Amino acid sequence: MSDAPAISRFPVPAIADLPEDLRGRILEVQDKAGFVPNVFLVLAHRPDEFRAFFAYHDALMLKEGGLSKAEREMIVVATSGANNCLYCVVAHGAILRIYEKHPFIADQIAVNHRKADLTPRRRAMLDFAVKVALRSSEISEADYAGLREHGFTDEDAWDIAAIAAFFAMSNRLANMASMRPNDEFYLMGRVPKR
Amino acid sequence: MSDAPAISRFPVPAIADLPEDLRGRILEVQDKAGFVPNVFLVLAHRPDEFRAFFAYHDALMLKEGGLSKAEREMIVVATSGANNCLYCVVAHGAILRIYEKHPFIADQIAVNHRKADLTPRRRAMLDFAVKVALRSSEISEADYAGLREHGFTDEDAWDIAAIAAFFAMSNRLANMASMRPNDEFYLMGRVPKR
Amino acid sequence: MSDAPAISRFPVPAIADLPEDLRGRILEVQDKAGFVPNVFLVLAHRPDEFRAFFAYHDALMLKEGGLSKAEREMIVVATSGANNCLYCVVAHGAILRIYEKHPFIADQIAVNHRKADLTPRRRAMLDFAVKVALRSSEISEADYAGLREHGFTDEDAWDIAAIAAFFAMSNRLANMASMRPNDEFYLMGRVPKR
Amino acid sequence: MSDAPAISRFPVPAIADLPEDLRGRILEVQDKAGFVPNVFLVLAHRPDEFRAFFAYHDALMLKEGGLSKAEREMIVVATSGANNCLYCVVAHGAILRIYEKHPFIADQIAVNHRKADLTPRRRAMLDFAVKVALRSSEISEADYAGLREHGFTDEDAWDIAAIAAFFAMSNRLANMASMRPNDEFYLMGRVPKR
Amino acid sequence: MSDAPAISRFPVPAIADLPEDLRGRILEVQDKAGFVPNVFLVLAHRPDEFRAFFAYHDALMLKEGGLSKAEREMIVVATSGANNCLYCVVAHGAILRIYEKHPFIADQIAVNHRKADLTPRRRAMLDFAVKVALRSSEISEADYAGLREHGFTDEDAWDIAAIAAFFAMSNRLANMASMRPNDEFYLMGRVPKR
Amino acid sequence: MSDAPAISRFPVPAIADLPEDLRGRILEVQDKAGFVPNVFLVLAHRPDEFRAFFAYHDALMLKEGGLSKAEREMIVVATSGANNCLYCVVAHGAILRIYEKHPFIADQIAVNHRKADLTPRRRAMLDFAVKVALRSSEISEADYAGLREHGFTDEDAWDIAAIAAFFAMSNRLANMASMRPNDEFYLMGRVPKR
Repeated sequence: MSDAPAISRFPVPAIADLPEDLRGRILEVQDKAGFVPNVFLVLAHRPDEFRAFFAYHDALMLKEGGLSKAEREMIVVATSGANNCLYCVVAHGAILRIYEKHPFIADQIAVNHRKADLTPRRRAMLDFAVKVALRSSEISEADYAGLREHGFTDEDAWDIAAIAAFFAMSNRLANMASMRPNDEFYLMGRVPKR
Repeated sequence: MSDAPAISRFPVPAIADLPEDLRGRILEVQDKAGFVPNVFLVLAHRPDEFRAFFAYHDALMLKEGGLSKAEREMIVVATSGANNCLYCVVAHGAILRIYEKHPFIADQIAVNHRKADLTPRRRAMLDFAVKVALRSSEISEADYAGLREHGFTDEDAWDIAAIAAFFAMSNRLANMASMRPNDEFYLMGRVPKR
Repeated sequence: MSDAPAISRFPVPAIADLPEDLRGRILEVQDKAGFVPNVFLVLAHRPDEFRAFFAYHDALMLKEGGLSKAEREMIVVATSGANNCLYCVVAHGAILRIYEKHPFIADQIAVNHRKADLTPRRRAMLDFAVKVALRSSEISEADYAGLREHGFTDEDAWDIAAIAAFFAMSNRLANMASMRPNDEFYLMGRVPKR
Repeated sequence: MSDAPAISRFPVPAIADLPEDLRGRILEVQDKAGFVPNVFLVLAHRPDEFRAFFAYHDALMLKEGGLSKAEREMIVVATSGANNCLYCVVAHGAILRIYEKHPFIADQIAVNHRKADLTPRRRAMLDFAVKVALRSSEISEADYAGLREHGFTDEDAWDIAAIAAFFAMSNRLANMASMRPNDEFYLMGRVPKR
Repeated sequence: MSDAPAISRFPVPAIADLPEDLRGRILEVQDKAGFVPNVFLVLAHRPDEFRAFFAYHDALMLKEGGLSKAEREMIVVATSGANNCLYCVVAHGAILRIYEKHPFIADQIAVNHRKADLTPRRRAMLDFAVKVALRSSEISEADYAGLREHGFTDEDAWDIAAIAAFFAMSNRLANMASMRPNDEFYLMGRVPKR
Repeated sequence: MSDAPAISRFPVPAIADLPEDLRGRILEVQDKAGFVPNVFLVLAHRPDEFRAFFAYHDALMLKEGGLSKAEREMIVVATSGANNCLYCVVAHGAILRIYEKHPFIADQIAVNHRKADLTPRRRAMLDFAVKVALRSSEISEADYAGLREHGFTDEDAWDIAAIAAFFAMSNRLANMASMRPNDEFYLMGRVPKR
């Protein structure tokens, strides 16, 4: 165990030492996923930031709305690829493969969403998301009009941009802390279940 | 009133229609500042995101720690300048002027922190913050070592990076929504009180 | 006085020691403005360059033509922001606020002219100016056609480009010399006169 | 079959119609790998270019020398990630996983080689390779000296640079032709054999 | 002779020591051109790579097709200028001047093809080539459509892209080896023959 | 004559119609050089700007100082190459070849000054000049210290930076006006006189 690579360049608290609410959330995730994604342990170093981070995450990723869960994960993977964030590409790539039931889609989007197996609608969604990630000061009404041509409402546009913005933060935190993806993520959703 | 420029390209709710907790927070800010900073009204369009945003903001900006309040605002202004975010440069520039009691410091840092009236320690702090903002995938142990030479601990480094990361998100939200700074901010802290 | 921050990393001559024509120009400015903008003192280190610089400046900024004085200053502020030039943003921002009688316009344009309170005509003007500042080798006839759609003549286009080009020089000189804006500029035009 | 996604935006010849030497090479690969990597079929559209491409590939990737086969594939994956080339990241990522017997290494290097499970020697190798890929005009003797500190000879440096250069070409060909990776590559080397 | 500047930072073999086929090719070129272009001597350090390089070169540059020989050299010069490759700009600039019988065209294209004496068709060709050189992951069907408007077929597009891709490799090799252009190239095609 | 390519996209006045001082300067140049460099004719469209431009030019390029005339032209060629300015690369390249009596030096510096036949001192000079041209906001005392190691004084540093700054302007004017180099420049200094 002591030889396992560090999951953060900062101290990682023991689950037993965490505040009750963090421990509860982490055990709940562990029950559901079968393991604890490292982002929970790494951010638990700062309990208040942990609480706000996951509250924000849930507000964007679990809410009802015009974007499917797979589409939200596509936004995460595309912008995290653009920001060269290992943790987010690997962890959210796994979730995307499972939601979309497509074993290749995450690798395609992480490397170059323009060459991925996507409808024009979804390509437009990712073009907008990547522009928010990389050149947000140039976003203009023309970008919103482009989304509307593909049936996205203004509320959808907010969702796309807010997810891209939240992971702009998340990517920077992961890069700063050298957050390591769990080994489990790499293979998830790649082998079809029988 | 109807001729006032829009503060967001998205709908802005009336304060009276907001959930109790949002209304409470907004009225509290209004009492203290004498006006409601537009970020509260613009993000109130999405109450759950509002709650998470300000919880995160408070966890980073109001906590105890090795960075002074003025230093935290310096990080906001430097990275928001790098991201060309009008709202954050103007609003947090005002707060910085007040905290630092220096009427020029915000304009200096927003345009080019290398030419600002700063100690070498604070310049190093902003060099790190701007690298997190613009090239986080290149952050390495050498950057942490550089901070230590100026007396910053690893916990300070997390603070600097986390503030830069949070405003990477905030800048993108403001740019996406064309969030308009309140007129009040432009002059705050520029005229010495007698 | 000896504790005042340096206005240049190069020697700054005493006004009394300057050649007659430089001294005359400087005293004239002082009479009019109430203080001597530092660019006059910093460039006086090189009298021949001083003479040419201000001759060029006047040829572009004081001439008759299709651009108003405020519009010329908008070009200065937008391109100086793009070049991260503290002196020019602060000094010409002050002049712009006064000409335009708009206390916010300079900060808006310096941070992101796309979010400023501008007519489409003026936004097109600044799009062209910033392209000259940052990517002049890509200027094509399509850019001139874009200006004509907003009523700009070819002579106006020359004016816009020449001002952007002159301040490309000026920004580099100010950055090289660490030219410091006078304290007076920061507040000018921000407080309405009664 | 007719519904399979195209592997190239250009015509793909039938194997039976190919010149003898191309067909021979392709069948040989098929025997060994169990399938025909699409790059063989896509480039077979131009037999002379096919011959030169694979002769060059073999001269760099199969020769003796100071770099292991896994290290050569690391160079391919790192530079192809930097060039956003889906085919090369996926196909050579598969080969790298097999050579290195490490199921995560390819994803790590493709997203950000600085965060990968690498020795300092291999990180220096990839720093050099990525500089050749992205900023070759800035390569200087200091870069060669940096490699020597990690035990690389000048001949090794040629190998690193030549592989980076060859895949600079290959990435551009794949991007131009929208070359699609075979489905088989995505899973190769991810599941340990029993 | 010993004072002549090195043509490579790597060892350059004597022609007499080369394998028969390399020596033959080199002597053939010498017969035709009157001197041996340094690329032959520099790459002869690696005979297998030499063979593949020139086989590939010939497959692209000597084949029949929709592009004239001068147009192919234009692609080389434009993309080599974009990659800051001294050898390729100087050597292929010379060849271009001769093929096109235009003493200025190479300098024009190397510095900025948008300002060169070119038909719109050739400008579109070079726009595409430079995009392949610098941003190949963004190539889309719209780029092919743009070429078709100027009469280029898909096979022409492959040729343009493949030449740009081959010289992406060649530029990196020359930059890595500090390959020096022969003195003869600088003047070739500049002085009209009588 | 009517078929000659335009030397400017703006009107070019007849010499006879020019103000006396401009006509005098132009005829003087013509006497000396044997032809009128197009920059004189193109800028004569704006006599006041013409006067200031050449006064500035002369103040920087003709003055006494620590830089040789050839070195000043090297700065022009290196920064004009970085700015992709055809007129300045071709015209000042010609002057540089003549001053330096080196037929290759201008092409070398225009494409990549790091690969040019230069002493370390001159390479350091051009590194500084190109940084002023491209990233002047990052100039720091470390850059001045680097110049001092090669024997440059602070006054030399001003000269280098001011020339880079002046041609930052000049390059943008030439690009904006599509200023065409005279045919004569292309060959000047390439053929040794007997």
